[in-house]
Amino acid sequence: MDVKELLEDAKKYEGKKITLSGWVRNHRKQKEFGFIDFSDGTCFKHLQLVYTNKLKDFDEITKIKIGSSIEVAGTLIKSEGSGQDYEVTVSKIKLLGDCPDEYPIQPKRHTREFLREEAYLRPRTNLFQAVFRVRSVAAMAIHTYFQEHGYVYFHAPLITASDCEGAGQMFQVTTLDLNRIAKSGKIDYSKDFFGKSAGLTVSGQLEAETFALAYKKTYTFGPTFRAENSNTKTHASEFWMIEPEIAFCDLSGVMDIEEDMLKFIVKYVLEKCPDEMNFFDQFVEKGLLDKLNKLLKSKFTRISHHDVIKILKEAKVKWEFEPEYGEDIAKEHEKYITEYFNGPVFITDWPKDIKAFYMKQNPDHETVAAVDLEVPGAGELIGGSQREEDYDKLINRMKELGMEEKGMEWYLNLRKYGGCVHSGFGMGFERLLIYLTGVENIRDVIPYPRTPGNCEY
Amino acid sequence: MDVKELLEDAKKYEGKKITLSGWVRNHRKQKEFGFIDFSDGTCFKHLQLVYTNKLKDFDEITKIKIGSSIEVAGTLIKSEGSGQDYEVTVSKIKLLGDCPDEYPIQPKRHTREFLREEAYLRPRTNLFQAVFRVRSVAAMAIHTYFQEHGYVYFHAPLITASDCEGAGQMFQVTTLDLNRIAKSGKIDYSKDFFGKSAGLTVSGQLEAETFALAYKKTYTFGPTFRAENSNTKTHASEFWMIEPEIAFCDLSGVMDIEEDMLKFIVKYVLEKCPDEMNFFDQFVEKGLLDKLNKLLKSKFTRISHHDVIKILKEAKVKWEFEPEYGEDIAKEHEKYITEYFNGPVFITDWPKDIKAFYMKQNPDHETVAAVDLEVPGAGELIGGSQREEDYDKLINRMKELGMEEKGMEWYLNLRKYGGCVHSGFGMGFERLLIYLTGVENIRDVIPYPRTPGNCEY
Repeated sequence: MDVKELLEDAKKYEGKKITLSGWVRNHRKQKEFGFIDFSDGTCFKHLQLVYTNKLKDFDEITKIKIGSSIEVAGTLIKSEGSGQDYEVTVSKIKLLGDCPDEYPIQPKRHTREFLREEAYLRPRTNLFQAVFRVRSVAAMAIHTYFQEHGYVYFHAPLITASDCEGAGQMFQVTTLDLNRIAKSGKIDYSKDFFGKSAGLTVSGQLEAETFALAYKKTYTFGPTFRAENSNTKTHASEFWMIEPEIAFCDLSGVMDIEEDMLKFIVKYVLEKCPDEMNFFDQFVEKGLLDKLNKLLKSKFTRISHHDVIKILKEAKVKWEFEPEYGEDIAKEHEKYITEYFNGPVFITDWPKDIKAFYMKQNPDHETVAAVDLEVPGAGELIGGSQREEDYDKLINRMKELGMEEKGMEWYLNLRKYGGCVHSGFGMGFERLLIYLTGVENIRDVIPYPRTPGNCEY
Repeated sequence: MDVKELLEDAKKYEGKKITLSGWVRNHRKQKEFGFIDFSDGTCFKHLQLVYTNKLKDFDEITKIKIGSSIEVAGTLIKSEGSGQDYEVTVSKIKLLGDCPDEYPIQPKRHTREFLREEAYLRPRTNLFQAVFRVRSVAAMAIHTYFQEHGYVYFHAPLITASDCEGAGQMFQVTTLDLNRIAKSGKIDYSKDFFGKSAGLTVSGQLEAETFALAYKKTYTFGPTFRAENSNTKTHASEFWMIEPEIAFCDLSGVMDIEEDMLKFIVKYVLEKCPDEMNFFDQFVEKGLLDKLNKLLKSKFTRISHHDVIKILKEAKVKWEFEPEYGEDIAKEHEKYITEYFNGPVFITDWPKDIKAFYMKQNPDHETVAAVDLEVPGAGELIGGSQREEDYDKLINRMKELGMEEKGMEWYLNLRKYGGCVHSGFGMGFERLLIYLTGVENIRDVIPYPRTPGNCEY
């Protein structure tokens, strides 16, 4: 039996004999009593185990150390103490796995930096127990949303020989013997595993478009990679992305979907993880629940990049970076604009020169039908666009940018073989988690983060 | 509106005006009529569009080519023709995206080999439309099963510096400049992205164990890689695995879970994809539905490797490979044993020398608490084991096998810090799909397969 089942249905089990297995998170002993703070990891709440010196092995039990695994038999009763509704009166405790005194996870406040060093043990702390359960539940929210709306889940390839998006930021994947290359001075890619140079994908979008044009609605949810040498709180070299693609859908349609999806995920997580979310609200980001509940009720603003720049220019603010038409916006601008509209903002129709080649060119020849979603407290959360469905315009844009057609024929052909208006977006899963939990460092929302110089476990 | 919605609720829409967007899969024209076989990819069933020469642009419409995307307005009516219950009487068709005559996907039988060459278009054929929808639905079945049973979804790291399982079969991941290595003759891993040599994971199990010992129940569902130079129907270099790990669970418990999970997935897919599954049953593997329905009703046999060998030795069969105690079993043996028991068979307690270092050593010193699930028609589908929770036994086994402790301290420590009996298993997602669809080549159940020499898209 799990603690989760027990506590969800406590009335039913009250007064009943139960047996549980789990871990000792804390242990306070007195002369006649002992209290064990017990968790089996199936829910955020711990269970209090109370034992008395009437047990014949009382002395043995008092010696059980923090971190140990135990099997406990006892009776569930209403608790008279504060902090819990129920507790267990112990009839028997069996030590399953001991734990030494030098166990790093003691019941005290550890810094997140310290816990990053002991990443394999941090899910045993309250904070990370909550973070990684929310990660799991948010992932399920995403699958549920798309599957219920008839999307086909698409597994994009991870190893790829096309590098149209990631030039310079791709990890190389090889089975060539580097020692032999060093010795011989020769590289022969025809001898590499795939017969050519290959790398790790930076996005599954282009391939997802092939599914959108067959299934109408598709989404990816998988890892992507970036060999970017940046050590910031929001960059990791390996992270998970959600990339939906929808045929017969324009920019306005994709904004509808983004808003609907995001509200669904927030609602789902709030409902399924109330204890975890309360914990974040209390100890990680004050006001988190207000922020999320407000999002649920808000209607997202839609405004063009041009009009955003106008507002920023008119603002009586001393900017670090002066806002300019035709240019990207900075963090300070994102912050200002979500505060200005007091809620999430879709910024549309971006200058084409700062956006990707595949985005739909607007009639003004200056902008593309792209949209970034800015949310209060986190800035850009989702980036999407209508895709260029015009074969000639797409190929001209590729030429302008010096991109090769070779290897991209299949992508171009999607515009020739029954092409249509279609759109999609990408959401970084960890960015979503940072927003949902208030935990602000990406290293703390991925179980085993990969960053420059870091590849443990 | 989607064709799926329309057909699921056809009674409601009968006689109503509807508008749909999708693709022309086939087009037959007569003098006074035309019939378009129409699909928007949201369901396996196509919709028949019927138009007459009463439409003023009749001649234009007759010219619409196979593969084109169109928007159609019309009325849903009961069909008098055979092959469909409903059809659409067209009032207007708008060509959205043309398609040339050389479009490779014509309404005729294409070989699977040909379609592999045009992998980006194959989801537009009946067979692959069905395969990749079942892939999506089966993935959702898996998430649903584990989430409903309280498991935490764990994203195992893909890039890893530990190579304890994959020696020699790992892809190397690097940002070192190979040209520079060739020129200088020197390799300096301290300059590599992670400051050391790294590769692509072959399994997330070891890391998943860290989550099992914090959450009790966890599962991975993600890509894994194998740089194995084998060109068989069942090997790919990049594939998806499901790896659950459960604390306080022994070998018998893990067999219960495997059986329960597999039946859940089969039932879920049969319920959600009846049209696709009927198609496979008719055109891909005769008897597929019987096979799967039988699985649902069967109680899986549990028998030791030793007793299996005994049965094989006593069988009056001329084996290609003679069965031997202490050795692995061959495909022909797997086949015989599932036929012998007329259903799925769990084979337990395997010779330790042919199994992995982390498996629980049995008291006989000869075998480990491992279990392979053999299913009729597919052979081994799932491999699992109880994990060695005894620190000393584990480290001794590692020494016997010449494995280094260095870099594995965290894994070993799981046995020191509140360790417990725990078990897990691994299921190759593509192997499951081969079993579910009857499509026997792994290249045909992955959207963009990676195999030696092949890395397109």
